Amino acid sequence: MPEPRLTEQLAFLAEIDALKTVVRQSPLVDRSRRENSAEHSWHLAMFALILADDEAVDTAKVIKLLLVHDIVEIDAGDAPIHGGHDPKAIEAREQAAADRLFGLLPEDQALKLFSLWQEFEAAETPEAEYAKALDRLQPLLLNTLTGGGTWNDHHVSEQQVHERYGPTIERGSTVLWAHARQLVAAHFHDRQKPG
Amino acid sequence: MPEPRLTEQLAFLAEIDALKTVVRQSPLVDRSRRENSAEHSWHLAMFALILADDEAVDTAKVIKLLLVHDIVEIDAGDAPIHGGHDPKAIEAREQAAADRLFGLLPEDQALKLFSLWQEFEAAETPEAEYAKALDRLQPLLLNTLTGGGTWNDHHVSEQQVHERYGPTIERGSTVLWAHARQLVAAHFHDRQKPG
Repeated sequence: MPEPRLTEQLAFLAEIDALKTVVRQSPLVDRSRRENSAEHSWHLAMFALILADDEAVDTAKVIKLLLVHDIVEIDAGDAPIHGGHDPKAIEAREQAAADRLFGLLPEDQALKLFSLWQEFEAAETPEAEYAKALDRLQPLLLNTLTGGGTWNDHHVSEQQVHERYGPTIERGSTVLWAHARQLVAAHFHDRQKPG
Repeated sequence: MPEPRLTEQLAFLAEIDALKTVVRQSPLVDRSRRENSAEHSWHLAMFALILADDEAVDTAKVIKLLLVHDIVEIDAGDAPIHGGHDPKAIEAREQAAADRLFGLLPEDQALKLFSLWQEFEAAETPEAEYAKALDRLQPLLLNTLTGGGTWNDHHVSEQQVHERYGPTIERGSTVLWAHARQLVAAHFHDRQKPG
């Protein structure tokens, strides 16, 4: 007889395979295509493994928050940073997605993943603040490595980068933001040089 | 002045973006394309978060092993399970890849990632045995969900599935293998039904 708990767990793990088909705005470093949310989540977990190590946060907890944070996009889609979306509508869609997707799991684990997702969204614990900072830092890095990436697509200025990325990264880590704003300055400075 | 440690760390994190372009044999559940090694690593980390929870292993350690285990493929490529490759040649390529890629990091972190990768490869700790089991279980699950996947491509029989997946999964978890072999049996049984 199949084990009912394992049947539910594998049904959830099969369902979240769909995160591999949710396409984000950010380009890959080699510019061959845009990133999807599953590989983005892996990349962020690696950012946590390497960078959280040097900060006063629980690295394993940051990794878990980042592994789970985008799963709701399977139903709710990705909400790009440069876009002008209705935050209330996004919140309602993501809440319904969390109910359906985490609800596939055995109840104890559904509650656990729901709680990880809510902790990330609320950004009130040091780990969630740091995870949010990495979730802003990674696309910033991809943009500086690809000659502008989504900043070109949306005509984003250096000032707008500061406004849209700065507060979240700085709240997680002042060291990261001090470094990131230098990468941003170098990018916008290089662009102004005569060809 | 940019922080030298952070400059090395971000250079490594930029370099491993390339894992998103290493294509594996396994199909996505929706059969739209084959899986890449970065999203595969995320999926495996989620397998660990959900399944290791019920076993006597350190879940956070299993997750770290799985996040790192395929990074060497950026230089060495993916070595498919149904293939007939020279293990010595693969080992030498992967060793050189680990030296170059982990060597981009500050020395303390290079040693740490090298050690995680070696622990996974050696499969001697309970966490590494469990991580290896998940790395076999996930493609098995993808194949059963897609009417055969790579088993069809390579004309793999039920007996060969037992030989190639069974020992590794069972060593990590007898419960997982007992469940998985039922999924395999159902798959091969359904295929024999008259259309």
